Amino acid sequence: MNKQNLHIIKIGGNIINNTDVLNSFLKDFSEFDGHKILVHGGGKKATELANSIGLKPKMINGRRVTDKANLEIVTMVYAGLLNKSITAQLQQNNCNALGISGADANSILAHKRIVKDIDYGFAGDIDTVNSINIDVFLQNNMTPVFCAITHDKKGQLLNTNADTIASEIAIGMSNKYKVSLIYTFEKIGVLRSINDDGSIIENINSTSYESLKKEGVIADGMLPKMHNCFNALQKGVDKVIIASPTILKNKNQPHTTLVL
Amino acid sequence: MNKQNLHIIKIGGNIINNTDVLNSFLKDFSEFDGHKILVHGGGKKATELANSIGLKPKMINGRRVTDKANLEIVTMVYAGLLNKSITAQLQQNNCNALGISGADANSILAHKRIVKDIDYGFAGDIDTVNSINIDVFLQNNMTPVFCAITHDKKGQLLNTNADTIASEIAIGMSNKYKVSLIYTFEKIGVLRSINDDGSIIENINSTSYESLKKEGVIADGMLPKMHNCFNALQKGVDKVIIASPTILKNKNQPHTTLVL
Repeated sequence: MNKQNLHIIKIGGNIINNTDVLNSFLKDFSEFDGHKILVHGGGKKATELANSIGLKPKMINGRRVTDKANLEIVTMVYAGLLNKSITAQLQQNNCNALGISGADANSILAHKRIVKDIDYGFAGDIDTVNSINIDVFLQNNMTPVFCAITHDKKGQLLNTNADTIASEIAIGMSNKYKVSLIYTFEKIGVLRSINDDGSIIENINSTSYESLKKEGVIADGMLPKMHNCFNALQKGVDKVIIASPTILKNKNQPHTTLVL
Repeated sequence: MNKQNLHIIKIGGNIINNTDVLNSFLKDFSEFDGHKILVHGGGKKATELANSIGLKPKMINGRRVTDKANLEIVTMVYAGLLNKSITAQLQQNNCNALGISGADANSILAHKRIVKDIDYGFAGDIDTVNSINIDVFLQNNMTPVFCAITHDKKGQLLNTNADTIASEIAIGMSNKYKVSLIYTFEKIGVLRSINDDGSIIENINSTSYESLKKEGVIADGMLPKMHNCFNALQKGVDKVIIASPTILKNKNQPHTTLVL
């Protein structure tokens, strides 16, 4: 039996923070045919809200820690304001969006990150994706829209990396679907020279990835993203690409394709 | 064909504001058998958040007006913090909760309240309930948990009375289900004398309701609630009761039943 196609698209703060770019993306996403899932990250609104109530971000060794007060903030902003605003806009565009967190329908089960050197607080590492419940939505012509909040089924909500959520959902759904995972990005793809679109690397495989790391072309925040990409490919996801959000409309525009 | 039973239970701020009462209710709700839907109101957290960012409630003639800033607050608190916390707790109790707003799966379509004397801002009056999409959740053993936010399918979220949401969902689902609508309450039911549980009025029909209004026994905030109750009964809902939240566990405890 041929598997049905499923596209999983992740958008980050760079899109969410820019109303015009977001509106344009949501229009393209709505018009994109077939089964699809949107995963969105945060954006500057959570920081703004934290600042406006006098809450200082808690950092350890340069990394953000989610204490109780910050978990409340991200739950309000990600699962409330952003998730519902995106959902309402998609509904306006006749995309039957269903905005949820990983707690809803127990769709993403996680555990509080285990403390080694640093206690990241209420940060979640994903255990399992409930592909059966997510498939109920897809089979009934709904488009799940996930924010970056999960739960541990012990009553605790957890702040979870949106790239990882996208990758784990892609892996979870790949038993039944032919899954394409698209990480959208402020650039057109992975670039050798950050301000030169002409320097795009159109294909990256595990071998060239190692070289690119050594050369320093791929570094910092791109490393965990690339880990999510390769993890997805290794665990059954059909296609992983990194691209500008306009890829949904112009599928022939330059982009980076990951292969094993 | 016999209709299946469906219970729709509404909880308000008085339950949400008290952690012990809320936990106890959510345990009882989880253990309550059969198809069920939870509708929750707000509580003091929205006011606290508004205060902490220096936002003053906007009132006209003693009624709250939802301006843009306040809509953001209630979307964050109702659809984000409260809805997800309740969902996570229900999941802990093995109730397969799905926390949503009226925008999700286009489940509750509303319009911005028409301005007559007062502009209530982003307050929503309900047009239709999407019983087909809500039934998808029920038929797949999910328990919808609605916050008091709807949308107009033109991209606008709207703050909507939770009592009315409960009543309109009850009406919408009554074509397919035998629906019981339970408004929970800080009292055991409608009391003749507000501090005397012994004065409970066990049955209220349309005739006795008129007398109780004239006597002033039913007044103020109870009037719109009673309107929602009778509206539900007139439009096909099987049973409407007003009770303390412990009714879920002790179904024989005194309560008020509404009849036509």
